[in-house]
Amino acid sequence: MRIGVIGGGQLGRMLAEAGAGFDARFTFLDPSESACAAVHGRHIQADWNDTAALEQLLAASDAITFEFENVSSDVVAMLAEQRPAYPPARALATARDRWSEKSLFRSLDIPLPPVAKIDSQADLDAAVADIGLPAVLKTRTLGYDGKGQKVLRQAGDVTDAFAELGNVPLVLEGFIDFDHEVSVVAVRGRDGETRVWPLVRNEHRQGMLHCSVPQIDHPLQAQAEDYANRVLAELDYVGVMAFEFFVQGETLLANEIAPRVHNSGHWTIEGAETSQFENHLRAVCGLPLGSTARLAPCAMLNVIGALPERDAVLAVPGTRWHDYGKAPRPGRKIGHITVLASSDAQLQERLNAVEQLLTNDLG
Amino acid sequence: MRIGVIGGGQLGRMLAEAGAGFDARFTFLDPSESACAAVHGRHIQADWNDTAALEQLLAASDAITFEFENVSSDVVAMLAEQRPAYPPARALATARDRWSEKSLFRSLDIPLPPVAKIDSQADLDAAVADIGLPAVLKTRTLGYDGKGQKVLRQAGDVTDAFAELGNVPLVLEGFIDFDHEVSVVAVRGRDGETRVWPLVRNEHRQGMLHCSVPQIDHPLQAQAEDYANRVLAELDYVGVMAFEFFVQGETLLANEIAPRVHNSGHWTIEGAETSQFENHLRAVCGLPLGSTARLAPCAMLNVIGALPERDAVLAVPGTRWHDYGKAPRPGRKIGHITVLASSDAQLQERLNAVEQLLTNDLG
Repeated sequence: MRIGVIGGGQLGRMLAEAGAGFDARFTFLDPSESACAAVHGRHIQADWNDTAALEQLLAASDAITFEFENVSSDVVAMLAEQRPAYPPARALATARDRWSEKSLFRSLDIPLPPVAKIDSQADLDAAVADIGLPAVLKTRTLGYDGKGQKVLRQAGDVTDAFAELGNVPLVLEGFIDFDHEVSVVAVRGRDGETRVWPLVRNEHRQGMLHCSVPQIDHPLQAQAEDYANRVLAELDYVGVMAFEFFVQGETLLANEIAPRVHNSGHWTIEGAETSQFENHLRAVCGLPLGSTARLAPCAMLNVIGALPERDAVLAVPGTRWHDYGKAPRPGRKIGHITVLASSDAQLQERLNAVEQLLTNDLG
Repeated sequence: MRIGVIGGGQLGRMLAEAGAGFDARFTFLDPSESACAAVHGRHIQADWNDTAALEQLLAASDAITFEFENVSSDVVAMLAEQRPAYPPARALATARDRWSEKSLFRSLDIPLPPVAKIDSQADLDAAVADIGLPAVLKTRTLGYDGKGQKVLRQAGDVTDAFAELGNVPLVLEGFIDFDHEVSVVAVRGRDGETRVWPLVRNEHRQGMLHCSVPQIDHPLQAQAEDYANRVLAELDYVGVMAFEFFVQGETLLANEIAPRVHNSGHWTIEGAETSQFENHLRAVCGLPLGSTARLAPCAMLNVIGALPERDAVLAVPGTRWHDYGKAPRPGRKIGHITVLASSDAQLQERLNAVEQLLTNDLG
């Protein structure tokens, strides 16, 4: 099993770790000299669209996947002509573009917050008049973790905002009151079989994921699975996809999708019968999908900017340390900590103990 | 964290997999060209006692461990003068020699089956007269998985048996009636802290481990922990050690110890809050030990000689596949399968399904 991965960050790194039991070999295409996945395989250091590098990747791989949305869907479509390459290019194209993504939700009758397509300052002025303030202006492509965004709180913020974000295609999203944010991670096999992990409650800080806690018997699990299945089927999807929602009372409002393994699914490495990384590999390689049942109460905390004191964290029972081997830098995800427990009360206790040790620098 | 490992088999391979979250780097010293751990680090291909190779290992390592008993304790003692090298040489020396091992049990008041030291055919004749038949004759050193052994059932088997096993130091062990075999895996830190995983019920076939099932609230857990702690303390041990026992009614009789991570602890990779591999690394590197609680009902099945049809196994829910990347050969451990479940009944069902798919060739 030889897997080619476009991108060599922590998601690629954890994919390779999940492939160890399959005796899989990995090749990563990543322009960065310090791609942290490279320790687990071969590293082709080149741009995502470097033709010679893509040929090398093809030659080294029986199947190909990617670990982020920054690669062009044309590249994936080209690779798919020569090897199984999943998730499919069309899913990537849709998820890369916030307007396409929102339009997909609408076409599938999945509720979502107010949104407008913005191609000019005039579009923006009209959309603000319609949706109201506060609202958030986002680039249609290439934004993540709060980057490429501007919150508009008052009329003055709107003036020249289109130019401020670079005169590129944007969307304006209305602010909504919501109770909390959840996500579901789901996987679809080449044969159309789907599996969904338990819904995860997420807490963000400064636009970055801070904490994810999988929920058992959440009243919105069925609704989330229904929406996820609509999207997966529509895109004839293969691999893992993450779906982020706002919870408003007993309603889910779709926020965004990610056509890849996802930070809110890292708890599955230790906490589920099959991890998102393993099931992504199983799907991409055409193997039967594994069970997504939760094994025990657990949660995941992101490590951002700076590592906390490792031994103090390890001294809290049930903690599992994930150092991605990346240089510390404010606002950068450099690791995560999984917390396992035998009861919800014990989990909360352990989680509180780890929270107090975190030295995250969000930048 | 740079770890040097003497031996590059599957135990070394799984140690490296457990080290990924610590961003640890591994170097393996192993004379085999096809050492299966080599995919996870650097491979120094040389004999265990090759001085130049040991120097290279020292230079590449902050701490050193070993994954089997075939290395001489003198080598470990030599390495320990220059780096933290665990488990300690004395523990290795004791476990490498069946007579030293049995003598240790006796000195610590740990019950064991009848045993005699055999240095000649005359010793053997006398011991058979004392212990009776059937009994099993074993080399004092270097035997494993039923190799270097002869079962003596009748008087004719005794004649010339000392010469048949090579005129080397032996022990004779009396056969005992026992209900089943269990093991406990335990870990002791540099600071003397110990943790013990749940007792495991083991089934052997032709002298090789077939299936391990961790037991919750086993009535002999406390007794097993007591015996394990006596041995760990006596040896001033650091790292993981496995203890095999026969269960006779409400009594444990000590069979043997292994001064390393152990096949009957593989279930801990997915089934425990901390795996034996991770806790071994934590101990060897002087980090706090992790919790040994079981996460969910689970079991491990060995894959011996030939891989079963992978996709059929993966189609059984809750299965995790461990292909060590070794060439198939009768009697060779080439992988294992962990089975996870949410109840004992579900575990049994899944285990039965996997058992039917196994194509083990015990040789």
